[in-house]
Amino acid sequence: MKKKHFSDRLFAEVEAKKSHVVVGLDPRPELMPLPVVEEACRGGGSNPASIARAIINFNGGVIDAVADIAVAVKCQIAFYERYGIEGLKAYSQTIRMAKESGLIVIGDVKRNDIGSTADAYALAHLGGNDGAAADFHVDALTVNPLFGADGVLPFVKRAAKNGCGVFILLSTSNATSGQVQELICNGRPLYSHLADLIGEWGGDYVGERGYSIAGAVVGATFPGRLESLRSMMPHTPFLIPGFGAQGGGVADVTAGFDRRGLGAVVNSSRGLIYAFRNEPYAGKYGEGAYKDAVRAATEDMRTGLWRCVRNRC
Amino acid sequence: MKKKHFSDRLFAEVEAKKSHVVVGLDPRPELMPLPVVEEACRGGGSNPASIARAIINFNGGVIDAVADIAVAVKCQIAFYERYGIEGLKAYSQTIRMAKESGLIVIGDVKRNDIGSTADAYALAHLGGNDGAAADFHVDALTVNPLFGADGVLPFVKRAAKNGCGVFILLSTSNATSGQVQELICNGRPLYSHLADLIGEWGGDYVGERGYSIAGAVVGATFPGRLESLRSMMPHTPFLIPGFGAQGGGVADVTAGFDRRGLGAVVNSSRGLIYAFRNEPYAGKYGEGAYKDAVRAATEDMRTGLWRCVRNRC
Repeated sequence: MKKKHFSDRLFAEVEAKKSHVVVGLDPRPELMPLPVVEEACRGGGSNPASIARAIINFNGGVIDAVADIAVAVKCQIAFYERYGIEGLKAYSQTIRMAKESGLIVIGDVKRNDIGSTADAYALAHLGGNDGAAADFHVDALTVNPLFGADGVLPFVKRAAKNGCGVFILLSTSNATSGQVQELICNGRPLYSHLADLIGEWGGDYVGERGYSIAGAVVGATFPGRLESLRSMMPHTPFLIPGFGAQGGGVADVTAGFDRRGLGAVVNSSRGLIYAFRNEPYAGKYGEGAYKDAVRAATEDMRTGLWRCVRNRC
Repeated sequence: MKKKHFSDRLFAEVEAKKSHVVVGLDPRPELMPLPVVEEACRGGGSNPASIARAIINFNGGVIDAVADIAVAVKCQIAFYERYGIEGLKAYSQTIRMAKESGLIVIGDVKRNDIGSTADAYALAHLGGNDGAAADFHVDALTVNPLFGADGVLPFVKRAAKNGCGVFILLSTSNATSGQVQELICNGRPLYSHLADLIGEWGGDYVGERGYSIAGAVVGATFPGRLESLRSMMPHTPFLIPGFGAQGGGVADVTAGFDRRGLGAVVNSSRGLIYAFRNEPYAGKYGEGAYKDAVRAATEDMRTGLWRCVRNRC
């Protein structure tokens, strides 16, 4: 059975759920509710296996709390890889739980390499029919474009075969991103060249809603940039991180959307999953009610974004 | 106990073994000797667990064959990740076997992210004392610099603490690398800006032999470039891939070395570990004697490089 085009699937979910929210599942035991960590460590103390249990329980709670109001989850694999094999088992289990709850799963893996090596990564994360394991199969993954087409097309091609998507790093939200991404090359910043390349790489894979399976990661901390990139890349879906904890607000991201309110999804991680730590949620929900805090924060982000994107506020 | 400076350790091994050779452990079952794969699959057929067994057996044979004549192994994690959890167990076991044989281990993971996420990757691959698992701990890893300092310094700092090294992508050997790396920015190619940054990032971590723990990955397919980068970056050790199967030869890489014959190590993967498939080794060694073929090819590369680097041929 041919799988549905990734961006068509993504934006159908956006419309069905009236949500642009991607919940970042970045499990950090030091920020997770203490009872969740303690229960997992009971008996055996803190070790990779018990931390992996805590991660699975915590992520399961978050997924339950947001499944009907978030469009996707984004799993930052570094926070799992850190705990070795056990951590990656928790990553695999998290992917499974999220898919079973009807959420689209984005693997934030930023993998990059060329040729057969890139394709090995693509098989690992986007699936294929060569006997590779399904442990890490997600709906879309993030990719770093430093190698040019050789490093990106193997992912895009594999994604096209399997109904998956790829989000290519374009302009990131960190302070020193300019050291490389804003270098002026032939009269314009590097990221603007990347924008051209990404548009080109995705050109053959545009779906019914006008968006390619090859998307771009565009940080929310440079609002003017988001607007110009949106108009430069009419067929490229954006994954916008940097919302909330990293400083971007609702008004900062609206320029990333088209007139229909499509074309982008917005990720928040710490601001949602650790909402019980911060006002206004901390006062209302204690550590024990972290799921209610996650849901409230996600719902606030959903309605705030939905209203603003639809009204171009 | 304070661990020894990475580059001092690397180049001490180069001198002790009279070898600049890094053997790339890129296990691809379709290229491995059939008997090794068949034995691992006996009974259970081909599945991730049996392929992982084949990988461990194959890599164990390669490591035995080269331990005294190679300075390091480089494990391309994509070829393990492709087989999910079982594949990564084989990665972990490979690291362990190589270390036990006295080889320096480079994790070719090209990880990249910022801040606490980058540090989570660094903990995963370079170690630390926070309870993270040791499964993937290597002596050095490869990093992609697209994020600027935010994406590189967390790795360099963690490496400095743990006696490890980092090789930062600078100029890769693939055909389309120029789409990004050769863009002319402020009058010179992007990679030349990266060269400045890498020199700067590693500046505080130069060892007794004059080399930093922050190295660079420089492909062997642009020989003139290697020479100019060597003089631009006198304190940066180079990891030179692209030797052999990717087209670079002995004469192409000598410009990467200093007058003492230090400053670089050279990786070959397919050309060494699958030597039994290609002349002049295929005729002499059959599939069953793949270890002898690996050793012969590695020894030829070692002596060829050593002679040429020392004589500036």
